[in-house]
Amino acid sequence: MNYPSGIKASKTHTVNYKNRGMSLEEDLNITNQYYREQDIAYIYKKPTPIQITKVDYPSRKEAIIKEAYFKEPSTTDYNGIYQGYYIDFEAKETRNHTSFPLSNIHPHQITHLKNVFRHGGICFLIVRFSTQNETYLLTGEDFFHFIDHTTRKSIPYMYFKEKGKKIPFEYQPRLPYLKAVDEMIGGSYEKE
Amino acid sequence: MNYPSGIKASKTHTVNYKNRGMSLEEDLNITNQYYREQDIAYIYKKPTPIQITKVDYPSRKEAIIKEAYFKEPSTTDYNGIYQGYYIDFEAKETRNHTSFPLSNIHPHQITHLKNVFRHGGICFLIVRFSTQNETYLLTGEDFFHFIDHTTRKSIPYMYFKEKGKKIPFEYQPRLPYLKAVDEMIGGSYEKE
Repeated sequence: MNYPSGIKASKTHTVNYKNRGMSLEEDLNITNQYYREQDIAYIYKKPTPIQITKVDYPSRKEAIIKEAYFKEPSTTDYNGIYQGYYIDFEAKETRNHTSFPLSNIHPHQITHLKNVFRHGGICFLIVRFSTQNETYLLTGEDFFHFIDHTTRKSIPYMYFKEKGKKIPFEYQPRLPYLKAVDEMIGGSYEKE
Repeated sequence: MNYPSGIKASKTHTVNYKNRGMSLEEDLNITNQYYREQDIAYIYKKPTPIQITKVDYPSRKEAIIKEAYFKEPSTTDYNGIYQGYYIDFEAKETRNHTSFPLSNIHPHQITHLKNVFRHGGICFLIVRFSTQNETYLLTGEDFFHFIDHTTRKSIPYMYFKEKGKKIPFEYQPRLPYLKAVDEMIGGSYEKE
């Protein structure tokens, strides 16, 4: 089971948010916030799915969850709307510098991305190779093409370099991935 | 703070899922599952947002959340894709039989629905009057028109009867709300 990034389960029993480098998740949160503030796109990270088993209820206004478990996500982490399009993607980082292990993406997340693609949504992966400090957007089409034509358990770094769209690191927005999405939707496309 | 339905905080400290009538949430979950199985639409309820403060980590494969709190949702509960459209809605039930109290919808959820609407998404409310056992879909437009032209703190039941689309209760799918969405998107509309 992969724990959601941002939650470092530790033996000290307390979640520690300090002393971490900026994660891909944080970069995307800041970027999505910028896109919302600029009225460009409304894309959110979904909350981590949790199975709650015990709740303490000391007062009418307050509830404390006392026991809960992480559940496997049935969909991807990010979705929303941009230029009338349904946007759906998964974002992962790897320290592996030669390939992206497919074990990072659950099989039902792949199924979900394929469903979205078939129904006209814009779907992709955002993968950061943290050793190289490079972030790529890989379109759903290129992702499906790879996994449907190989039995490899990882996608080579070179595949991202060749097929992916490299997302630069900028001041604002931090990770301008919608520029790559603009290329996917052809820019001039208007819904009406 | 409104607790998510499905989680009945109780002084007995244990979440009790038994002996409840079928809630609107359950009906929608079953309906969305049917729509997915039939490859009609991919619409999911978002997980309840939780702030995790303590995690116990007894083994490599297991994590137990020992302390967490409910957070206010920043978006609506349901979103997904249908016929290439971004779909976004909030679902609530009320026992009040004359009106739907607007306190059921957070101000930032209203803002979110307006943002989605402005960007070309399909948004609406699904409201169940449990006393009458009637469920209505109210389009974003009709919802915004009401709240922008009144200072009332609730939407009268009659407004739903006049402007809303009544969703029948059926065998499969349980709550065929996409029929009402078909009317919103004009049925014959094709994206390509």
